Amino acid sequence: MSRSLNLAVIPGDGIGQEVVAQGLKVLSAVLPQDVKLETQEYDLGAKRWHRTGETLPDAELDSLRQHDAILLGAIGDPSVPSGVLERGLLLKLRFAFDHYVNLRPSKLFPNTATPLAGRPEIDFVVVREGTEGPYTGNGGSLRTGTPAEVATEVSVNTAYGVERVVRDAFARADVRPRRKLTLVHKNNVLVHAGHMWKKIFDEVAREYPAVTTDYLHVDAATIFFVTQPERFDVIVTDNLFGDILTDLAAAVTGGIGLAASGNINPAGEFPSMFEPVHGSAPDIAGTGKADPTATILSVALLLRHLGHEAEAVRIEDAVAADLADRDGTPRTTDEIGDALAVRVAG
Amino acid sequence: MSRSLNLAVIPGDGIGQEVVAQGLKVLSAVLPQDVKLETQEYDLGAKRWHRTGETLPDAELDSLRQHDAILLGAIGDPSVPSGVLERGLLLKLRFAFDHYVNLRPSKLFPNTATPLAGRPEIDFVVVREGTEGPYTGNGGSLRTGTPAEVATEVSVNTAYGVERVVRDAFARADVRPRRKLTLVHKNNVLVHAGHMWKKIFDEVAREYPAVTTDYLHVDAATIFFVTQPERFDVIVTDNLFGDILTDLAAAVTGGIGLAASGNINPAGEFPSMFEPVHGSAPDIAGTGKADPTATILSVALLLRHLGHEAEAVRIEDAVAADLADRDGTPRTTDEIGDALAVRVAG
Ligand SMILES: CC(C)[C@H](C(=O)O)[C@@H](O)C(=O)O
Ligand SMILES: CC(C)[C@H](C(=O)O)[C@@H](O)C(=O)O
Repeated sequence: MSRSLNLAVIPGDGIGQEVVAQGLKVLSAVLPQDVKLETQEYDLGAKRWHRTGETLPDAELDSLRQHDAILLGAIGDPSVPSGVLERGLLLKLRFAFDHYVNLRPSKLFPNTATPLAGRPEIDFVVVREGTEGPYTGNGGSLRTGTPAEVATEVSVNTAYGVERVVRDAFARADVRPRRKLTLVHKNNVLVHAGHMWKKIFDEVAREYPAVTTDYLHVDAATIFFVTQPERFDVIVTDNLFGDILTDLAAAVTGGIGLAASGNINPAGEFPSMFEPVHGSAPDIAGTGKADPTATILSVALLLRHLGHEAEAVRIEDAVAADLADRDGTPRTTDEIGDALAVRVAG
Repeated sequence: MSRSLNLAVIPGDGIGQEVVAQGLKVLSAVLPQDVKLETQEYDLGAKRWHRTGETLPDAELDSLRQHDAILLGAIGDPSVPSGVLERGLLLKLRFAFDHYVNLRPSKLFPNTATPLAGRPEIDFVVVREGTEGPYTGNGGSLRTGTPAEVATEVSVNTAYGVERVVRDAFARADVRPRRKLTLVHKNNVLVHAGHMWKKIFDEVAREYPAVTTDYLHVDAATIFFVTQPERFDVIVTDNLFGDILTDLAAAVTGGIGLAASGNINPAGEFPSMFEPVHGSAPDIAGTGKADPTATILSVALLLRHLGHEAEAVRIEDAVAADLADRDGTPRTTDEIGDALAVRVAG
């Protein structure tokens, strides 16, 4: 466990700034006295792009690399063409820092609204592959903009990339009480990638005899997310399916305001990056309505990744207690951050 | 309106046989006396593949082509390697007969269970592209089965293919009371295909000034499916996103037992094919537990496509009335079919 924490902070766009401020507040409150927290803020996102045309210059990528971890708020603004910041900044970071484990826990906390009737018990983790699949940027277009245009998107999958994320998922499942791992893909249609995923999954499974496994097609998985979410423990899946499933998971567990994520480079060759699953929500930016809980839970994942397990648990317990004690009175971003900072310190 | 109906029937696997029998029962009951119904059954699916190694020989494809429409039960069995029947039979039919509109209505009928609390009003239609996207079978694998394997899946999208399905969706939205069309894609990541879809969508939109349009990323769309499904009227989307979204839609509208679909070739150059969204459910095959309603609703889509609008509505009304009158006593496949046959005839 390191006795200093050198954190890069990318507030980004919209509500990013506001929620990150609360994340840092809670982080300062929870850290042991003897851990020195240093933060460096990076001005990246829509404003920067409008000003300079830059999304993520190499110099800043090099600088970001020097940190223990990255806390990111949200990236994206309607004033920027779709894809520019996503590909040029967010995905560039995930790929450059080899964040091959995109970790997204889903838990239905007490006293939180779910659109599902009957309040099923929900407590699962999605291990989403983060550096391959249809996210690689392969593909292109021919005769662009004409009636004869052909546009392709290539999902690239390697045994190297699949095996490492599948291993990570098995290791996570193996230390959870239910020890269950579900592979989600679409191997009846995407046969090349799907069969490779399945084959590697089955091979690694042999090393984890205590882990129960199953396989679901992605379409069927969405059904179980709403009819039987309690059946899931750990899920491992490809980059795009993971993107879709984790938004759905967030929706059934009380909304995107509570969904945390870690873009993890498990070996620690590069800094891992933690961010709420939600976007920049420009419609509520500056109103104090943004819920910083997802960012604060992302800080817990950050602490866990860096070996501060006790502090991670303190944050998660504080969030559970805070949600349980709510009386429905609307609170501002700042008030929620304050309440959680008090709880983790106390 | 044709005064004869020359129907190809592919019962397929598992519960396919049982549900198709009920579909034909209701079809016979609803058809006007003077419409001559001729059916020809095709032995395709898992059993045939085990026996002969064939999925869909050219001679049968040619023969199928002679019919006015195809009614399909379900394809797939765990004894057949994943992908063999899907690619070799079901998708082969969709591609060979240029079923570029995969039409999937979602409606929450009265007195049906939904996993969603508060029973939102749900009545939308997904127009799923059926002949492109990641379903084209492009891609492959290199160094297959070795630790150095690379597997790709190529999503192929053409302006030709996108424009025709987008036009179909606008035309459908334009005659519905709410006149709303949502494009679902992931154009912030799949920029080549996504931008082409969006550009064509925006262009066609200009010809339909009365249709309100919006755009959602596929991940965000899944959130609205469970938190605000009443916001959707018509959705147009790519083949894979449509696959995922329509299973989720089926789940929130009372389950896959009620979800109908049409694989439509709008110009009628080839026979269109109608099938329940559900699979072959080998676990309940032969038990009489399969709900034939999805198949019967698919027969309604078939009739509408062939110009028998009044008969289509009769079936849909009968299903609504049948569901409303249910008292919860379990009914067999046959009993449900009988009840609906009586209603449409009466
Ligand atoms: C903004 C977008 C590129 C991103 C993704 O698709 O991964 C987001 O949806 C997420 O899930 O983090
Ligand atoms: C069986 C499978 C190939 C098919 C698909 O993916 O289209 C099914 O899921 C469907 O939705 O009709």
